[in-house]
Amino acid sequence: MSMKMSAASCCSGVLDSIVHYVQYKLSIFREPPPKTLELRYFDIAGKGAPIRQVAAYIGAEFTDHRYKTREEFLVEDKPKLKFGQVPLLKAGFGPINIDMVQTTAIMRYLARAYGRKDLYPDGARGQIVDSLCDFEVDFALGESAIKYGERNGIILDEEATKKSIDAYVQVIKQKLELLDKCIANKPPMSEKDSPWLAGTKLPTIADFLWGCRLRGTASSLNTWGKSSEVDLSKFPNVKRFFDAYSSIPIVKKWSN
Amino acid sequence: MSMKMSAASCCSGVLDSIVHYVQYKLSIFREPPPKTLELRYFDIAGKGAPIRQVAAYIGAEFTDHRYKTREEFLVEDKPKLKFGQVPLLKAGFGPINIDMVQTTAIMRYLARAYGRKDLYPDGARGQIVDSLCDFEVDFALGESAIKYGERNGIILDEEATKKSIDAYVQVIKQKLELLDKCIANKPPMSEKDSPWLAGTKLPTIADFLWGCRLRGTASSLNTWGKSSEVDLSKFPNVKRFFDAYSSIPIVKKWSN
Repeated sequence: MSMKMSAASCCSGVLDSIVHYVQYKLSIFREPPPKTLELRYFDIAGKGAPIRQVAAYIGAEFTDHRYKTREEFLVEDKPKLKFGQVPLLKAGFGPINIDMVQTTAIMRYLARAYGRKDLYPDGARGQIVDSLCDFEVDFALGESAIKYGERNGIILDEEATKKSIDAYVQVIKQKLELLDKCIANKPPMSEKDSPWLAGTKLPTIADFLWGCRLRGTASSLNTWGKSSEVDLSKFPNVKRFFDAYSSIPIVKKWSN
Repeated sequence: MSMKMSAASCCSGVLDSIVHYVQYKLSIFREPPPKTLELRYFDIAGKGAPIRQVAAYIGAEFTDHRYKTREEFLVEDKPKLKFGQVPLLKAGFGPINIDMVQTTAIMRYLARAYGRKDLYPDGARGQIVDSLCDFEVDFALGESAIKYGERNGIILDEEATKKSIDAYVQVIKQKLELLDKCIANKPPMSEKDSPWLAGTKLPTIADFLWGCRLRGTASSLNTWGKSSEVDLSKFPNVKRFFDAYSSIPIVKKWSN
């Protein structure tokens, strides 16, 4: 009997380990937040900025690793990267680690994993948030093609770059106009006087994404000597949103 | 007493209507599927194709409205569109209608509203699905800039277009290589022998998005006279995925 007990207890120990391991394997595809988080990106704002801000806003503890040199990125991470690009979020779940890539995909994940439906709502409101994130991609397409054309298969010589910058400045104004109207025509169930893009009480991931984007675009316009051509005060709802975004304490702290 | 009853019953009728209305207003931001769906897009595959396929795959009843002329789109819908673009999904919730835009945002919404976690999983698996959707945007950036450059502020003359097409064909091959590796290195908890991009048992929204994208890119390569330069059989995992996708009965039925 004691032998049986001992065998049983031994078996049960092994079984427990197996059950525990399987639970881990299963659980990472449900919703517990990761045990450890490390964000790896360059020491600039860029595509990493909205992730840093959202992670900090949630109160998630994370290591903010910034490459000291381009070589560090090229040697240490680039060959292992799923799509060859950072930001990279290393999420640790005890025995298992998952490398997560792509900016909005990481932001959606963080909001869900930490149960923050204010940042990423369900249902029709979530659809609005997602559509605003997609519109940010449309908005930035010209900028991406001008700045990183060759990487994407777009070959612009000096003359074509100049013409494209001029044309893109007009696109920026058209799209800011659309964004302004979109904020003005709030969806049903919106909070009265909400400054946020989806009419919510608190900011969503779309607000962090667009806030960082507007900063990035302002910086590009400055580099191109075109700052004076886009006046944000002509888009009062966008301006009001951007001011509200800029006033979030976490944003002030994590502007880069 | 009878008067009181009558007043009470009158009040209760009005109250019921109010409660009912508020419930509707609240419920559309939770998860019940819409009562009516109308998808409005051109009579081509394009950005509408993956939505049509996902809606049909879910078994959602929807009106598949296809503009008969460009004027119909320009006059009837364009001025009311949030970001000036279709696809547009008109979702009806009894007294309230919501116009939904942007392809992946609509696909995510449909999967969630109909409770189809197979199409759009939670947690870390959902992050993988989202990152694959974002990578599809990266993949298509060059194509968008070449085909719809002016709309995005990219000015390519004949010479620049020719050079860009050549460069973009190389980008296609690089990115298909990455996608191939990504399928080969399946995430933990993947189904054995899954042909799907996120290693799931059933296809996700990322599979519908990428399936349509690969068809679109094949068509563009054909138009550019470059079909012979990209051989899908050199990317065996992508090929296997694409064959599995093409065999989905709904996809066969809704190829356009």
